[in-house]
Amino acid sequence: MNFLEERIVKDGVVKPGNVLKVDSFLNHQMDIHLMDQMGEEFKRRFAHKQINKILTIEASGIAIACAAARYFDVPVVFAKKSKSINLDGEMYVAMVESFTHKNVNQVVVSKKFLSADDKVLIIDDFLANGCALQGLISIVESAGATVEGIGIAVEKGFQIGGRVIRNLGYQLESLAIVDAMDAENGTITFREQ
Amino acid sequence: MNFLEERIVKDGVVKPGNVLKVDSFLNHQMDIHLMDQMGEEFKRRFAHKQINKILTIEASGIAIACAAARYFDVPVVFAKKSKSINLDGEMYVAMVESFTHKNVNQVVVSKKFLSADDKVLIIDDFLANGCALQGLISIVESAGATVEGIGIAVEKGFQIGGRVIRNLGYQLESLAIVDAMDAENGTITFREQ
Repeated sequence: MNFLEERIVKDGVVKPGNVLKVDSFLNHQMDIHLMDQMGEEFKRRFAHKQINKILTIEASGIAIACAAARYFDVPVVFAKKSKSINLDGEMYVAMVESFTHKNVNQVVVSKKFLSADDKVLIIDDFLANGCALQGLISIVESAGATVEGIGIAVEKGFQIGGRVIRNLGYQLESLAIVDAMDAENGTITFREQ
Repeated sequence: MNFLEERIVKDGVVKPGNVLKVDSFLNHQMDIHLMDQMGEEFKRRFAHKQINKILTIEASGIAIACAAARYFDVPVVFAKKSKSINLDGEMYVAMVESFTHKNVNQVVVSKKFLSADDKVLIIDDFLANGCALQGLISIVESAGATVEGIGIAVEKGFQIGGRVIRNLGYQLESLAIVDAMDAENGTITFREQ
């Protein structure tokens, strides 16, 4: 097990309905040392790529993206979730369905901060059905920029998102892939990587 | 002028209606070196305080809070904005009016992550009328924890928030206090600190 898998086993909580709570160290309270380790590991996995920008989505992707940005020495742009349809044409827009909240959000990035020259690493905390990620990819493509890679903290390997993204040919690196969870006895099965 | 004031003069944009856009380096695209400098400066200003936790609010406070957390070597908790009234009693809740979006949000923090022992530094990117900050303070008080200090990147000195918070006796440190802006010629007047 790597450092993140070990931490999930130690402090993650499995709830009924395939819910994995990692809010004590990843997405509500955040362990700043763990963030740093994740940033370093993403740099190792994408060391061969020329990356000049990291793109994430509010809110819980921001801390991980910032930790990675220190290792890549590049700026972070975070996509904003917006209910508003009152856009001024200066935004890239994607529609994103939320698995957790069962609604659809606009996700927007200002055109000022993504252009055709950009070589982008997308970072997020969770990958399940992949809707948020597909929205971010679509925004990068709208800008004519290149998705050089995708870094995820925790992938739910039993949901479709990871397979779809890998089938599309992207280098997707998930630090922990959960293939199964058992809420009864709290066990978590990680995919061998 | 300090490093943040210089950056605001260089890359900030003054818009009519006392709007200051800092989205190219602070709250949409984020300069990771600037975040680090801010974190270091907050450590300097609160060096005499015993702080064991940083509290911020999603989304744009998170990057600054994480940068500061590296210098204080403490975890970050971010308050979540929630439209839902379906809370399970395990959350501290505050009602926060948004000046920008003209609506009211619930702001919540899990009771697991704030307790009476906590000595909290509150961090946020902007302070204007202070509603978000008052919500965070109220959450810390609900937990029986102590607000040791408040660190803000940009304070709009011509709005009431800063005065209210200082009158309440809190150590509020704003790295840049904007006392006046002129959208016509783009000038910004900072308060001498």
